[in-house]
Amino acid sequence: MKQTKNNQTAVFALGGLGEIGKNTYAVQFQDEIILIDAGIMFPEDELLGIDYVIPDYTYLVKNEDKIKGLFITHGHEDHIGGVPYLLKAVNVPIYGGKLALGLLKGKLEEHGLLRSAKLHEIQEEDVIKFTKTSVSFFRTTHSIPDAYGIVVKTPPGNVVHTGDFKFDFTPVGEPANLTKMAKIGEDGVLCLLSDSTNSEIPEFTMSERKVGESIDGVFRKVEGRIIFATFASNIHRLQQVIESAVVHGRKVAVFGRSMESAINIGQDLGYINAPKSTFIDYSQLNKLPDSQVVILCTGSQGEPMAALSRIAFGTHRQIQIIPGDTVVFSSSPIPGNTLSVSKTINQLYRAGANVIHGPLSDIHTSGHGGQEEQKLMLRLMKPKYFLPIHGEYRMLKMHSKLAQDCGVAAENCFIMDNGDVLALHPDEAGISGKVPSGSVYVDGNGIGDIGNIVLRDRRILSEEGLVIIVVSLNMKEFKVTAGPDLISRGFVYMRESSDLIYEAQKLLAKHLDTIMERKTTQWSEIKNELADTLGPFLYERTKRKPMILPIIMEV
Amino acid sequence: MKQTKNNQTAVFALGGLGEIGKNTYAVQFQDEIILIDAGIMFPEDELLGIDYVIPDYTYLVKNEDKIKGLFITHGHEDHIGGVPYLLKAVNVPIYGGKLALGLLKGKLEEHGLLRSAKLHEIQEEDVIKFTKTSVSFFRTTHSIPDAYGIVVKTPPGNVVHTGDFKFDFTPVGEPANLTKMAKIGEDGVLCLLSDSTNSEIPEFTMSERKVGESIDGVFRKVEGRIIFATFASNIHRLQQVIESAVVHGRKVAVFGRSMESAINIGQDLGYINAPKSTFIDYSQLNKLPDSQVVILCTGSQGEPMAALSRIAFGTHRQIQIIPGDTVVFSSSPIPGNTLSVSKTINQLYRAGANVIHGPLSDIHTSGHGGQEEQKLMLRLMKPKYFLPIHGEYRMLKMHSKLAQDCGVAAENCFIMDNGDVLALHPDEAGISGKVPSGSVYVDGNGIGDIGNIVLRDRRILSEEGLVIIVVSLNMKEFKVTAGPDLISRGFVYMRESSDLIYEAQKLLAKHLDTIMERKTTQWSEIKNELADTLGPFLYERTKRKPMILPIIMEV
Repeated sequence: MKQTKNNQTAVFALGGLGEIGKNTYAVQFQDEIILIDAGIMFPEDELLGIDYVIPDYTYLVKNEDKIKGLFITHGHEDHIGGVPYLLKAVNVPIYGGKLALGLLKGKLEEHGLLRSAKLHEIQEEDVIKFTKTSVSFFRTTHSIPDAYGIVVKTPPGNVVHTGDFKFDFTPVGEPANLTKMAKIGEDGVLCLLSDSTNSEIPEFTMSERKVGESIDGVFRKVEGRIIFATFASNIHRLQQVIESAVVHGRKVAVFGRSMESAINIGQDLGYINAPKSTFIDYSQLNKLPDSQVVILCTGSQGEPMAALSRIAFGTHRQIQIIPGDTVVFSSSPIPGNTLSVSKTINQLYRAGANVIHGPLSDIHTSGHGGQEEQKLMLRLMKPKYFLPIHGEYRMLKMHSKLAQDCGVAAENCFIMDNGDVLALHPDEAGISGKVPSGSVYVDGNGIGDIGNIVLRDRRILSEEGLVIIVVSLNMKEFKVTAGPDLISRGFVYMRESSDLIYEAQKLLAKHLDTIMERKTTQWSEIKNELADTLGPFLYERTKRKPMILPIIMEV
Repeated sequence: MKQTKNNQTAVFALGGLGEIGKNTYAVQFQDEIILIDAGIMFPEDELLGIDYVIPDYTYLVKNEDKIKGLFITHGHEDHIGGVPYLLKAVNVPIYGGKLALGLLKGKLEEHGLLRSAKLHEIQEEDVIKFTKTSVSFFRTTHSIPDAYGIVVKTPPGNVVHTGDFKFDFTPVGEPANLTKMAKIGEDGVLCLLSDSTNSEIPEFTMSERKVGESIDGVFRKVEGRIIFATFASNIHRLQQVIESAVVHGRKVAVFGRSMESAINIGQDLGYINAPKSTFIDYSQLNKLPDSQVVILCTGSQGEPMAALSRIAFGTHRQIQIIPGDTVVFSSSPIPGNTLSVSKTINQLYRAGANVIHGPLSDIHTSGHGGQEEQKLMLRLMKPKYFLPIHGEYRMLKMHSKLAQDCGVAAENCFIMDNGDVLALHPDEAGISGKVPSGSVYVDGNGIGDIGNIVLRDRRILSEEGLVIIVVSLNMKEFKVTAGPDLISRGFVYMRESSDLIYEAQKLLAKHLDTIMERKTTQWSEIKNELADTLGPFLYERTKRKPMILPIIMEV
């Protein structure tokens, strides 16, 4: 890396700065690169038809020989979803906790990469040593078990990456290792990279135990069926639901692919504990009284194809809403999903269900720490330099302000973009350059073959539709031998617009005659003139600007 | 109306039940129809390219002779936006307060309907009498001045429509007429139609006066420029900003078409009062120190083309963000706009501005009353029958529960869908039938010419793109004379996919040969076979399913 001096450690992100998702961070000292996480992002609506967004791996491909390993903080999609694409680019060893690797294995198998992947399960006390650098871990709390922060030891100093975290002094599962964090802080932290997601939230995040009490309250009160929707990866939440089910004499039926797989992995790895007889399948479900069952399912974000949406809209093959059902949304809608969640709730009410949702019900808590927790992390780690990560720009900005409140010098806080390289040295730090970064779109099998032109076309097509002009020309005699015909898709009902079409054809035919008289042989000129004749006519009549595609055939 | 008996009053909605927007309600007694509001709805993302959604006016067209008038509760888009389309269907007299009519006039002018429209300005004390029915008004508080509730007197009893309302005991502008509401209640309300928007909110909506104090606090503290974004129609809010500007020695520059027009109408009608010298234009803005200006603009919902978004993204012709600017979002994002508001805020921070937004800043309050206000309305009106209106299903459901808490019998509360007809009589009430209702899409000049097929096509085109197969056939000799050629839009980069295209052409050519050998003359058969050959091939290679359009020309 040209931009850093020999005695400096470089820190940069290929994804995860100024955005939520596609987290991919790197710490580099000389010829040793430590990668942290490889996430994926789900596209916004304007990226029409795009399935996923991954970072640009160009820098990694060019420096494959230097990469010592990919270290996974935890098993959420925005931290492991990019691994298959990363491995197709560079086959590096992967280190992670047992649940993260468990979830990753399924993903690699789908991509046919499981055999070739080099997976190493880590324990909290492990230290992975390379020639000049080493990597160690500390247990944190997040909305998925087995979440770790990562310490990269480099000659200029230690770089700490918190992963996603909150503090929960009464967690479900193992508590965060505060003692180790304090020790890491005491040993000296040159730079802290810390989760900024909830930096605009002044509260201390509610304990998962409190959510458990609310869940138990629901089980105590409700007499009909309980349909419980939450994130499949929140395995502690699932365990709390299952515990309440056991206590209140209900059996658990599981619906939705990712939920089924989470329950299986959770049981295999020992995170989910319940008598075998707790779980029932569909055929047993209908034999039990309503008061003795709970349906655990996916779809708490209103995802149209998930179990809960299909149940709500009556398209689920096995479950229909019956009056008296209580549906619990143990989740909060992420901003892009507000409308679809709202639709699902309306539909559930229409079908006769009662719905428990929203912050007033205490039935969900965030996986990310609020301001007080972020400050606790800062006070424990006492970093010299601070780099807020994992959040939109406004969150990074606010987190930087919190760091300054906790004693980090303002000039030592860096709000960076993906690709910016932060060069760190005990006496100085600064942004020293840029590596290639950006978004690569995955659509079906294609990685990076959809660009702005294709997206622009999709946008025009989606909003205004398409009109094709088809005409056959005899270019020796300069005669129109067939057409002009018009074909449209997504424009107007052709059957009800026959006048419009007829007039358009007349207009085009007339113009074609003048073109033929001129004996033009320039196809592009003919095409442009046809489009320029039809466009304004259609706009005047319909106030729409469809894409116009002239197709000329020569005979 | 067949569904009601001669001694019953019918109440129904063509829009506004189970949705926010396109509010259009009707009260009918025998041959007299009173219409209340004619709103428009902005389409959701899945309605690709649709500009507006209006109700189905079929029933009104068939019963035009019975319609006595359209009564407007207030001047918001979701209550007056449909008027031009309604007038194109039925030219009925329109009654409304002066601001509602002021805003409506601009709209009618754009549609060339101002001359033919029959507009009547009403005062609160007016009573508009028809043969069997009469209409009177009561002043309410909402986020726009001049908001009225409406009483329709019919022989079986009085039907009260609240319009959109909240209670604010320290409003800006004239207070709601509690005394008149109590009197109406005492006279007897057969059926109350009441605004359900905030029925899930347990709080009493914060007073507009409190917002004024927060605005003043901002003006007291901030030293740089203030850029203040809010809804143009919230004229009381604008007045409060202007008052603070005068007190703190700032001049006001106004940007954004609807904001400019609101300031003009507000001044004309006397809602906005300020010394003439308070307002400055762009040329004066740059001559004053930053501490002496405030920019009042549209775009508080993150609308991409509004002034604030253009300022944030650096595409506004006159205003650029300068570090030290403070941007105030005096608004709360409606669910579909969360992401675009968030993007605008991020971009403003990036450009160096400070941003004040969100509920913690007390810089905005809702125009709709929460549960306590809805209950106050119920206690004042003491209706026999209750019909919650204006809200999604879950809100109607919750509002109905509140009515029962306030003494309305459960069997007298009706949660209806658009089109349902509620037949009212002092001794009985019930849903007695249905009138045509539904959504009509407006796209450009076309009203109702976009249907599900066109929308389905747009969706496929937007997500997967389009591939056209062009081929010329000699159907006498059964020979391919040109092609098959492939043209695509929104699918993949053709230049980078030449192998894919070449193989697809070969495949199609081979299949065409077999078709020609068979001497088929069925065009639809040829087209289907070409599409069925290409589709699976493209899916296998790209995992995408573009729309395939075979175009065959005969020579």
